[in-house]
Amino acid sequence: MFSLQDLQEKVNQLISNQEFKRKPQRLYDPIAYTMNHGGKRLRPLLTLMACDLFDGDVEKALYPALALEVFHNFTLVHDDIMDKAPLRRGRETVFKKWDSNIAILSGDTMFALAYQYALRTDYQLVPKILEVFSKAAIEVCEGQQLDMDFESMPTVKIEEYLDMIRLKTAVLIAVSLQIGAIVGNACEKDIEAMYNFGIQIGMAFQLKDDLLDLYGEQEQFGKITGGDIASNKKTYLFLKALELCDSEERVVLNDLYNDSSIESDIKIGKVKSIFDKTGVQATVELLMQDYYNKAINCLESIDVVKERKSVLLDLSDSLFSRNY
Amino acid sequence: MFSLQDLQEKVNQLISNQEFKRKPQRLYDPIAYTMNHGGKRLRPLLTLMACDLFDGDVEKALYPALALEVFHNFTLVHDDIMDKAPLRRGRETVFKKWDSNIAILSGDTMFALAYQYALRTDYQLVPKILEVFSKAAIEVCEGQQLDMDFESMPTVKIEEYLDMIRLKTAVLIAVSLQIGAIVGNACEKDIEAMYNFGIQIGMAFQLKDDLLDLYGEQEQFGKITGGDIASNKKTYLFLKALELCDSEERVVLNDLYNDSSIESDIKIGKVKSIFDKTGVQATVELLMQDYYNKAINCLESIDVVKERKSVLLDLSDSLFSRNY
Repeated sequence: MFSLQDLQEKVNQLISNQEFKRKPQRLYDPIAYTMNHGGKRLRPLLTLMACDLFDGDVEKALYPALALEVFHNFTLVHDDIMDKAPLRRGRETVFKKWDSNIAILSGDTMFALAYQYALRTDYQLVPKILEVFSKAAIEVCEGQQLDMDFESMPTVKIEEYLDMIRLKTAVLIAVSLQIGAIVGNACEKDIEAMYNFGIQIGMAFQLKDDLLDLYGEQEQFGKITGGDIASNKKTYLFLKALELCDSEERVVLNDLYNDSSIESDIKIGKVKSIFDKTGVQATVELLMQDYYNKAINCLESIDVVKERKSVLLDLSDSLFSRNY
Repeated sequence: MFSLQDLQEKVNQLISNQEFKRKPQRLYDPIAYTMNHGGKRLRPLLTLMACDLFDGDVEKALYPALALEVFHNFTLVHDDIMDKAPLRRGRETVFKKWDSNIAILSGDTMFALAYQYALRTDYQLVPKILEVFSKAAIEVCEGQQLDMDFESMPTVKIEEYLDMIRLKTAVLIAVSLQIGAIVGNACEKDIEAMYNFGIQIGMAFQLKDDLLDLYGEQEQFGKITGGDIASNKKTYLFLKALELCDSEERVVLNDLYNDSSIESDIKIGKVKSIFDKTGVQATVELLMQDYYNKAINCLESIDVVKERKSVLLDLSDSLFSRNY
């Protein structure tokens, strides 16, 4: 059985062994730039962990794991164009460093590369892996569309928001675990349990991200603090604060979100002070805990000795104690 | 054995049976809009023809064929953003009708849908099909990048241009035929011959397209005549004309391509009159014929009775006698 560090090392080694710098240079340079970041590389790690949980051959999960990391990075490259985000992980985004055409096309290439990597495992596993991978890929796009739709909608229901983050974030985390379980030859019930564990962890993970966007340490988080507020993102934090605050504050909050003339810093400060007054931060943390507990229940339902689950449990814990 | 009309009918039926209009609406409406065009649907047709050539089960080739059409349309949606093209097949492009964010994301979704369709065939064929498909997808992106690179390069060699259109256009036509041959259970040698036939036909097809861009009938072609000149595309037509004209005209031609202030119509007219003087149109037609002959040689090398080849031959003929 492998430790978190063993698997992290395998993922890092695998990525640094890839020759992303090919020709034409202007296509592949942004890919190499994107892949050589200091990010968490959470998704491939989850794939290897899920495979190892079932005592599967982790070597056979390496390339499918890489596929998930490349796909995830592709979505970030395209999302950053759509969101006009200047920074990602403390560095310029691809569209900012090059231009949006380069970011579109390098992203497309990464998507195709992801599929190419996903094929590099046992041939008999390929159809199943690609089936769940493609379904997830489509759902991630649907989630991103909903996210964009919400920006111009006057009101968003909390359940709509939660469904959006399920699609945009949780599904890919879930399928990373699911693919690991498939390579690990888990039974259908356990493959499904891994997926569901991933959905719950993914929901909690996104809520944590929403919190960190406002309350995280800018330097370590690598994004501008309060970016969600600056771009009028109707996050759970915002939607719940709307619900919790009194009618007067609700008007102020809505006005702030509809005012495009107000300067970012001032807007973030004002919104944050209303958020703080409502105690919404604690409410989000409660919901996060609820998803986390459900995740643990899924993990417990899997028919594997408890010791094997410790690596996944430890990682899950560390994700929710992070402050960047 | 199926006729061209039979197979065309199958392709049209298959596409009209798909429910592209799903939720979120702003993601799927552009996909339905893109797929319901009156285009040639050449690539899926080639897949079915290649399968039928080897007496394969055409029903098993339907979804891989659809995958190629969806993928091709995805590349057009993204290319139109990059090229800022307002028209495609006589209608507004997706980025123009909606916006570029919608076009990016609907395109991404089509890419994922293409893979989902490609999986819907015999499971044992899936790894091989997806391997050649992914390789082609990457090469198409490389071709598009080279195409964009050429715009800002002072000079482009003719061989570089030909390699670019091989990647950007010929490879997808080739892989459409290759996948049909795979589903048709052809032997390795014949699968390769189908691919090579596709490369040669694809090269000829693109040269025809370059000609039609300038000499085609605008209404039927569905694009603005001379669009390549307007956007300074260094097509074979341009590069060969540069080679054929005298040094004085060469300066004029280069100046016209470097002058961003000159009005489109006037520029197209001036460039065209130099082209006409050099007789470059006939030179392009000769090269096209050369590719065509090589394609026929590939087809002849395939160990199948001559009669079975007639459908592919007829289609190839019709592609080169088209005037739009």
